[in-house]
Amino acid sequence: MSRILNLAICQMQVTDCKTHNLARAEAMIGQAAQKGAELVVLPEIFNLPYDTAIMADQAEPCPGETTAVLAQAARRHHVTVVGGTIAELAPDGNIFNTCFVFDSAGALIGQYRKMHLFDIDIPGQVTFQESSVFAAGNRLEVIHHQGLGIGIVICYDIRFPELARLLALQGAQILLVPASFNMITGPAHWELLMRARAVDNQLFVAAASPAHNPGANYKSWGHSLVADPWGTVLVQAGSGEEILTCRLDLSVMERVRRELPLLQHRRTALYDVCIMAES
Amino acid sequence: MSRILNLAICQMQVTDCKTHNLARAEAMIGQAAQKGAELVVLPEIFNLPYDTAIMADQAEPCPGETTAVLAQAARRHHVTVVGGTIAELAPDGNIFNTCFVFDSAGALIGQYRKMHLFDIDIPGQVTFQESSVFAAGNRLEVIHHQGLGIGIVICYDIRFPELARLLALQGAQILLVPASFNMITGPAHWELLMRARAVDNQLFVAAASPAHNPGANYKSWGHSLVADPWGTVLVQAGSGEEILTCRLDLSVMERVRRELPLLQHRRTALYDVCIMAES
Repeated sequence: MSRILNLAICQMQVTDCKTHNLARAEAMIGQAAQKGAELVVLPEIFNLPYDTAIMADQAEPCPGETTAVLAQAARRHHVTVVGGTIAELAPDGNIFNTCFVFDSAGALIGQYRKMHLFDIDIPGQVTFQESSVFAAGNRLEVIHHQGLGIGIVICYDIRFPELARLLALQGAQILLVPASFNMITGPAHWELLMRARAVDNQLFVAAASPAHNPGANYKSWGHSLVADPWGTVLVQAGSGEEILTCRLDLSVMERVRRELPLLQHRRTALYDVCIMAES
Repeated sequence: MSRILNLAICQMQVTDCKTHNLARAEAMIGQAAQKGAELVVLPEIFNLPYDTAIMADQAEPCPGETTAVLAQAARRHHVTVVGGTIAELAPDGNIFNTCFVFDSAGALIGQYRKMHLFDIDIPGQVTFQESSVFAAGNRLEVIHHQGLGIGIVICYDIRFPELARLLALQGAQILLVPASFNMITGPAHWELLMRARAVDNQLFVAAASPAHNPGANYKSWGHSLVADPWGTVLVQAGSGEEILTCRLDLSVMERVRRELPLLQHRRTALYDVCIMAES
């Protein structure tokens, strides 16, 4: 394989106004396409401030207002859009933190519902209870698109090495991570975890954060990045609004896996990461 | 739990002379004890240069010359000794890369045989075929000693997140990692992997490397370190010979696990790391 993938991450500034956020996402997707991107990744909860108190009221079905904007932007700018996440109102009435993926014709080609909900309580620093509003997804899948195996991992999911491992074993060559680490977990763990998943599984990891917004309740760390299968950070954003572009040489994955055959060296006669159930 | 553990890592300079290396290990264990250490960790293959060509001839049974020195040093200096690793000649004729652990009375309280053998081939940079001489171990265990759960992980083993996870689930509070990363993998991955295992499993990781020896065939990276359950590097050596001491507050683990209950948030109804077999 010698395929080159031109990827862009839109580290967009998320405001209180959904209409503005959707217009901004559309504009940034267009700018990313102009920069040559084939695949554009948005951050977690890009259409609203990340506040659990408003998620239930603002949740949308698919198709719905936000997914229509994403599908149209993908089609108009002829790029694959990994639409960060939105609060999804599911047909069963549950609300999920969901990533929708559209191909360059605007067709929905994948959907992943966050499997691990972020419940943290560090007294005096950060408290967040995602499970107060969201239901947890139960299904992982690798999206095979134009010869590329894409695994979606949403924010807190990245802390669970089992998930990245299962996606790698199912053929993911890149993990796309819409995420929003905060000002405590960001400096402590953001780059570490993205690089570690890349190194352990010998694949690319591209993490998309909202820009840091000093006025928001939940303050994102920013620092969107792309790590290669050796764990090298190819590009990394600062904390402000930015379109991060990266040219990925997918043959690097094959070279790294040949030189240090980690996945073959797993002792699967002794242990393995097992799927217990899917619903 | 509010227990304090005084730990020392002997980042010793390994020479071509086994007699010298054993005397050096004994002396450094004594110095570590004088510094207040209760538990002393030696590096991987501390009694010989790390050259697969000599391992078969130099392999020793247990009890044997090297383990006698370790047991005696533990007893004399009244410390628990995690004896790095040696080439072990097993009763069945196989040679393993094995860690022996002695309590402060000199009694053998644990033994772990490296489960993942380091076979790497990066043309022009580093080539090493550990499987050309060693057999792979088939058994992991947590050593429970004086209220502390100790998991042993040997060098290349650390690249396999399944192993660290299984040890954490079996009650390890600290992973002790006799290891010898080289001048390619060391700068690229040493600190990253040690910190990532600590963060993912919310436990301490203490990694013991030989000192860098510019004259050796296999040049160790050094940089022995201790990371806490939040991934903070508490202490880190340079590349030269050094006794690294660290005071570990084990209550940190409980606080981190309470504030961000990662291990409880695993979706074990959907996936788990399973033991397939043990021999």
